[in-house]
Amino acid sequence: MTMQLAIEVDRADDPRLQAYTSIREKDLTSGHGARFIIEGKVTLETALRRGRFKLGSLFLAKSRLEPLADLLAQVPQDVPIYVAPQDVMDAVAGFPMHRGVLACGIKGDIPSPAEFLSQGIRAAAPSTLLMLSDLSNHDNVGACFRNAAAFGADAVLMDAQCCDPLYRKAIRVSSGASLWLPYAHGGTGMDMVNAAKAEGYEVWAMTPRAGARMLGTLRIPEKLAILLGAEGPGLPDALISAARPVRIPMSSGFDSVNVATAGAITLAHVFGQRT
Amino acid sequence: MTMQLAIEVDRADDPRLQAYTSIREKDLTSGHGARFIIEGKVTLETALRRGRFKLGSLFLAKSRLEPLADLLAQVPQDVPIYVAPQDVMDAVAGFPMHRGVLACGIKGDIPSPAEFLSQGIRAAAPSTLLMLSDLSNHDNVGACFRNAAAFGADAVLMDAQCCDPLYRKAIRVSSGASLWLPYAHGGTGMDMVNAAKAEGYEVWAMTPRAGARMLGTLRIPEKLAILLGAEGPGLPDALISAARPVRIPMSSGFDSVNVATAGAITLAHVFGQRT
Repeated sequence: MTMQLAIEVDRADDPRLQAYTSIREKDLTSGHGARFIIEGKVTLETALRRGRFKLGSLFLAKSRLEPLADLLAQVPQDVPIYVAPQDVMDAVAGFPMHRGVLACGIKGDIPSPAEFLSQGIRAAAPSTLLMLSDLSNHDNVGACFRNAAAFGADAVLMDAQCCDPLYRKAIRVSSGASLWLPYAHGGTGMDMVNAAKAEGYEVWAMTPRAGARMLGTLRIPEKLAILLGAEGPGLPDALISAARPVRIPMSSGFDSVNVATAGAITLAHVFGQRT
Repeated sequence: MTMQLAIEVDRADDPRLQAYTSIREKDLTSGHGARFIIEGKVTLETALRRGRFKLGSLFLAKSRLEPLADLLAQVPQDVPIYVAPQDVMDAVAGFPMHRGVLACGIKGDIPSPAEFLSQGIRAAAPSTLLMLSDLSNHDNVGACFRNAAAFGADAVLMDAQCCDPLYRKAIRVSSGASLWLPYAHGGTGMDMVNAAKAEGYEVWAMTPRAGARMLGTLRIPEKLAILLGAEGPGLPDALISAARPVRIPMSSGFDSVNVATAGAITLAHVFGQRT
């Protein structure tokens, strides 16, 4: 594959760069937009190598064109590569873009967990899903994707209350996993739990409450969905009751870990038992 | 215990508030200062109830005095409680202090890991230590403390390259654990590993490298030290060689978790096996 020609842009108000203007404001407003921002060389590499989203364009600082030649050779021919001097790039983005590497991804249609599950998962058994309810913190959602990827989960399913895993910070914290790991997003937590059960998944509702079964004493089912709730309040009673309550053994004086960490511990345990 | 009288302060430049001036600048410069900042009601509660550091003073927005009466009754008589109108408090701190609750802790002498270990650990066997080398990220250090507390580690030992766990953000991310969980800080990573071995600890160097023993296949020693290194480069070869290399089974295409998460998985496994 040969590298296509880069398109030089010298004005910050060039309409072709509209996807890249005022990135931080977009962070605040366009949580569910049709386009999302990829930043940095490593993340772009992930997007090109294994990402599941089509790219709209790339936007690079001129000085990065030469050092990135190998990577740019992998950019599909129909994806324009815009380049500009660093100061123009900074003016477009609205803050200093030291890394000089941006791309714009096209989100497309994301199914709800119920739609996703009804299409059938193409994963070979055994299968593990990570299910998130009401997780509105981008760091936590990003970390959940990273952990799901590290421990071989087949997909991440999220109810409508969760934030967008393609938000800039969520992508970064996920180490790019939200660009390639299948996910579904939408509907209620109960819809999600019911859809998983209908597809034969045993749902473990992770909760610190007494009475929950201890992780480590349970047989790992062939089809397992691990359900995590918001860090402060935890999962609502209705969702816990609809599933099997499971807890991670912890010190009695301090039974608190971050929600993504609780997910990682559970995923690691399941992965280790199945390996 | 009766509540002492609060001392009203009405000028932002009052010298008694010097510990609270320009908090964010202090964040950047005084990583190893003699005093540290506690913020928010929950963290102050932790500091008063189980913290191991003496408090220098409290500094509250006037409106918080009444609602916090129960908590303030626990403040030792020799610790002054300063109160000021919200706008004065904001001017002192250098940014809006919505929560209106600050305290200043006195750090005192923190031993190095070698000093700490030579004093003998008063924990009943079995004993677990979390050892950190070259962790300069406050979120990661804070999360390591939270996880160590959740899974009953006896102490956190850190070499000199680690950042201060009493930094404002580290305390917050630790859920206050860095205020009460014993820790040591200083010296080289190798000093720390050697001191732990001299005290009869088996040291597990957590690393994703092939050839490391799989967590889950190892007998848990009575005295175990879990060693974590910086997230990007990982532990240096010399430290890995001086210890037993151990890895967490992960997906072959994506063997990467956050360093505090790796610690949590290991701590949870050990805690679960010992319970």
